[in-house]
Order: sequence, then structure tokens, then C-alpha cells
Amino acid sequence: MKILVDAFGGDNAPEEIINASLLALFKHKDLKITLVGKAEVIQDCLVGKKYDQARLDILDAREVIGCDEAPVEAIRTKKDSSIVRAIEELKTKPDEYCAFVSAGSTGALLSASVLKLGRLKGVNRPVLAPILPTAKGTPVMLVDSGANMDAKSNNLVQFAMLAHVYMNKVLGVQKPRVALLNVGVEEAKGNELTKEVYPLLKQLPINFVGNMEAREFLSGDYDIVVADGFSGNVLLKSSEGALKMLMTEIKSTIMSGFWSKMGGLLMKGKMKDLKKKFDYEGFGGSVLLGTKGIVIKAHGSTKAKGFLAAIEQAMVIGQSNILTVIESEFEKMQSVDYLQEKANNDKEISQAVQEKINQQNEAQ
Amino acid sequence: MKILVDAFGGDNAPEEIINASLLALFKHKDLKITLVGKAEVIQDCLVGKKYDQARLDILDAREVIGCDEAPVEAIRTKKDSSIVRAIEELKTKPDEYCAFVSAGSTGALLSASVLKLGRLKGVNRPVLAPILPTAKGTPVMLVDSGANMDAKSNNLVQFAMLAHVYMNKVLGVQKPRVALLNVGVEEAKGNELTKEVYPLLKQLPINFVGNMEAREFLSGDYDIVVADGFSGNVLLKSSEGALKMLMTEIKSTIMSGFWSKMGGLLMKGKMKDLKKKFDYEGFGGSVLLGTKGIVIKAHGSTKAKGFLAAIEQAMVIGQSNILTVIESEFEKMQSVDYLQEKANNDKEISQAVQEKINQQNEAQ
Repeated sequence: MKILVDAFGGDNAPEEIINASLLALFKHKDLKITLVGKAEVIQDCLVGKKYDQARLDILDAREVIGCDEAPVEAIRTKKDSSIVRAIEELKTKPDEYCAFVSAGSTGALLSASVLKLGRLKGVNRPVLAPILPTAKGTPVMLVDSGANMDAKSNNLVQFAMLAHVYMNKVLGVQKPRVALLNVGVEEAKGNELTKEVYPLLKQLPINFVGNMEAREFLSGDYDIVVADGFSGNVLLKSSEGALKMLMTEIKSTIMSGFWSKMGGLLMKGKMKDLKKKFDYEGFGGSVLLGTKGIVIKAHGSTKAKGFLAAIEQAMVIGQSNILTVIESEFEKMQSVDYLQEKANNDKEISQAVQEKINQQNEAQ
Repeated sequence: MKILVDAFGGDNAPEEIINASLLALFKHKDLKITLVGKAEVIQDCLVGKKYDQARLDILDAREVIGCDEAPVEAIRTKKDSSIVRAIEELKTKPDEYCAFVSAGSTGALLSASVLKLGRLKGVNRPVLAPILPTAKGTPVMLVDSGANMDAKSNNLVQFAMLAHVYMNKVLGVQKPRVALLNVGVEEAKGNELTKEVYPLLKQLPINFVGNMEAREFLSGDYDIVVADGFSGNVLLKSSEGALKMLMTEIKSTIMSGFWSKMGGLLMKGKMKDLKKKFDYEGFGGSVLLGTKGIVIKAHGSTKAKGFLAAIEQAMVIGQSNILTVIESEFEKMQSVDYLQEKANNDKEISQAVQEKINQQNEAQ
């Protein structure tokens, strides 16, 4: 099993990324890694470190795409960047590599993957799916977390299917509970999009359990949460932001006086366990679902431990046959009634049909 | 100063609501309250309690609107409900009453207020605006938190103006920092709606400071956050949900062993201060901005302390001339250039114009 690693993506690249890769090689004897980036810098980082040289390659790439660069422009002009090089390697050698892991620019990674790898048959829009820890210890997958800003109802239907296949085939969840992010639990609640999506999700061959309010996101009562990229991004970032802020506040509360410091000392072990429970890097990075090839986006601020989790996640996905399953599931979906019905209901299509009818009437 | 109070709204009505009202009367000697709801139940609750009877009235209302009822249907059929009665009283006696406070059904309260009180001149869609505590101790106002699901750009422009007037005139914030909820800070980021709103907010006579990512919501770096009702609701509930979950986890962490219990005991005072800092009921309830009359929605699960804060918030608003200021500001807005330009750009209007041109062409 061989994985491509972006040595020049993320705030702590290349040191932490390279350390994570060496850790991964040490832990998994069947793993091979190709580090992509400036070869001499990577080699400098490797000096004095022990590792199995037979299982570590370097693919030279002279450019780096920054997080503030316009994604499409960046992948067009920086053809020798680590992201573009790695994606091309993944595309041209699908039998050699099983995945690409990067902590670099989300936008560039998304654009390069969608434009260069292409989409799996039947998939309209690939989706970026982070996995978060919940109060019950189980993981919850969010589709979409920001790849598709103005998503339509048929996109959300596909997000649900993609996540269902992932949770089932990769994480082994028997009947993943799929919820729709909404402002209330009743079917009639929400905006135009959610009202259109709800009945479609009900018809899917998945375990759709209805609407979920944002406050239940980390409850552990759901395995998959479906949302458009904008509100999914708000859900993800506000949850992370609130948890981080409270943790910081608690730390400074503990440090604010003698007795509270003593108290904090007594609680240290248990608090560490708690922090570990809600470590969002524990489950790896965000998976890009729907492209021809497995791409994982690790957190931009990730250190070696978090990036190692992302590499291990890539290994688990690589061992599954998820790409084949997605294609066969989507083929099945195309043929079943609900998609036909959906097409009939689809506003755009019905408008087009109406226009055609009008034209015919005029012609008569 | 006289305030209408819904004695039958919220999970802890009527006891906690009545207790809060008596507390408010005790604290504020210039305050009068009219409790709205089943008179004999209210009187039963008052038995044995000391209060200034001259300052407490009861307005009999025989029905109660549940939180699961369809709002518009409920206010149509339950004309003798506490919410409908109170709103009608506020409308017919604007010189007697300065506000209505309820912890009842948000939907029914919104519908009754908009349909029966009506909108202030120039306001298209009233907005529900909660105020939350931040890490810096300052309040942040969210417009909208769920009243307007499929809001348009001109609605969001008005939300910003309404919140600006509130923060400035009621809370005395000199130049409230207004941010637009978005997936990134760059102007070009976001969905169709935010891309359309951003340049309009820049032209407003307010202190617009750009886009804000959801993780910064409680940072204290912003005084007002503008969003459509759907994503605003997601922002609010996921932040509250994450904080509440972590607090629960910390409690059970403390209780999980002898030493952590001891530690918790030593930290008790400081932790109480922290809890108080992030008590979202400390600033009162959510204000409905844009209607002819002041309506405050207290949290459904509020107890006496939280409801007291909402009553006191109503008093502060009542002392301001916010309704007059909103009307005059909106009149000014109508006359300035940017709104003209906005109207020209507005998709719907330009479509309507285009249709008119087409019709004229056909007629010729």
C-alpha cells in the first residue's frame, strides 16, 4: 500500500508532516510513502533520522500553493506545486497509489482533485466530509463542510449516499443514521432547500432519521449530517470555535488563583482524557468523496499526531473498495423510481419542460 | 412604565414567570406589569405572596399556544390565547404599554407580532435578534436567528441597520462593529447571497468590518453578526449546543473520581464565575426588531432569573426611543443613493423591468 503525502501543505510543513510520515512507516510495515515537495528540503529534514529507505520515496515539486491564493488560478499557474504534482501522480498511477493526503489549501486541493482526477460516474458534485468525535464517543460525518456553496437538492441527495457508503464500507457502521441539518425537527421546517430535500431523502435506500437541529450535532445520536456547504461550514466552525473558546476559558480560570490551580492539578488526568475524547484530529482529516481517487484533507494547523491519523485513515479507505461501491450504488440509484420522480419534480427541469410545451403550443 | 407578560409561555410557566414578575416589581418601583393568561391559575400562584397589588394587573386569556402548533394557524384559531391577547393589548394601547415579554412559541409570537402589530415604515421583514455573551465580556447581537428562512440581500441590509440602531441607541455602543457571517474572510468568499450582500453592507452608514467565520462568533471582536435566518439559526444553536455539551462533560469528568471531585471542589467558585460569564440569559431574550411595538422572546426553558433579565431588557428598550429612531433611519436610507442603486441591481426588480420591456416590445 502506497500513499502520496504533501510535504509542503499546512502550517507546520514540512517538519511535522515528515515526522508523521516516518511514524506511519515505523508503525505499519506494509506501508510505502512518497513525499511530494522540494526534494532538497525534504532530504535535509530526513538527515539523521532512522527509517526504512526502501519504503520512502520523494517526488520533487518546486512550487507551493498558499492558503490565500485563488484555488483555480493557483492550480493552473503552479503546475509544479506539490498539490498538482501529487494529484497527477495519483491519476496516472492508480494501481500504484491508493490515496493522497495533504494539509494544504482546501480550495486548491478540491479544485485540483475535481478538475484533474475527475468525478466518479454518476456523481454531480464531490463533497468534503470531515469526521468529528461526539459525546457518545462515536464519530459523526458532515457532508458538506464547505465544498459546495449553493448546493441544490439533488446534490444533497448525493452527499447523503456518498456518506452512507463511506460510513458503511469504511467505518463498518451497519445502518448509519442520516439526518438533515435544519432549524427544527418537523418535516415542514426550514428553507426552500431543506423542504425540497426532505422528501427525497425519505425515498433513498438509507436510514434517514429526519431533521436535526444544530445543537444536536455532537450528541452522538447521528452518524451522518447532510447540509449545503455554507450552513455545513457554519455548523462545523461554530462547534469547533465554541469548544476551543470554552477550553481556553477553563484553562485561564484554572490559572487565575492558587486554589483553582491546585484543583486543576488534581483534575489533570481526567481533563486530559476529556480533551482526548474531543480531539477532532483523532479520526483523521476530511475525506473528499465522489472523485476518481482518494484524497484526504488534514487540518491546516495539524501536527505530526494529527497528520499520522490522516495517513492511517487513508490506509483504511485504501483497503476498502469504496470507489467501486460508490459507482455501483450510483448506477443503481439512476435506475430506481425516486430519481425519475425527482427529475419530474425538479424545478429547473419542469421549467424547461414548461417552456417546451409553450413553444409547441405557439407552433401549433 | 407598564409591561405585558405572557404568564403561560415557556416550559416553566406559570410559576417561574410569575416569580420573575414579582421580583421585577420588587426591584423596580416605577414598573407595572400585566400578567396575561388564565386569571384563576395566576391568582392561585399569587396566593400568599407579597407584592404591590396596585402595580400588578391580570388580563384573562383562556387559551395557550403550544410550541408544536403551526404558528399562523394557531394565532388564527386561538384568538383567546395569551400571545394573541397580549399583542392586541399592546397594539390598541401603545401609550399604556411599552413592551410584551413571552417565553412561549417563537413561531406564534413572530406571526402574531408581524401580522397584528405590523411593520415599522420602511421595514420589509422584522428580524429576531438574540444577544449573547462573548469571551471578552461584551455582548454580540445576531440578526437573524431564524425568523426569515429564505432571506434576500435587501433583507440582510435591513437586519444590519436594525441591529445597528439597537446596539447604538439601547446598549450605547458607539460604533457597533458589524460583520457578515461567511465561510471565509475574503470578500469573494461565500454563497450567492453573501456575495450580493457584502458590497451593499459596505455602502451602509454603519461600521461594517467585513466577513466573519463562524468560529469567531463568541470572540468578542464583533458587536453585530448578520446572517440569513437559516444559517443564523445554525450558528446560534451549534454554539449553544457545543458549550452546553462541554459543560456537561466537564461536570461528569469532575464527578468521575475522588481526586477530580476534590479538584472540582477547589475550583468551584471560579467555575461559577465562568458559568456566569457565559450565561446566555444574562442579557435577556431575543428582541423582535422592525415591528410597531417592542416584543421580547425569552428562552423557552427560562426560569425566574432569566425571565427577570428579559423584563429588565424590555424596560431598557422601553426607555429608549428606538421605534422612532428606526423609522427615521429607514426614511433616510430610502432617500440615499445606495438604495436606488441597490434597487437597480436587484435581480427581481430588474427581471420585472425586463418583463415590462418585453411586454412593451410585443405590444408595439
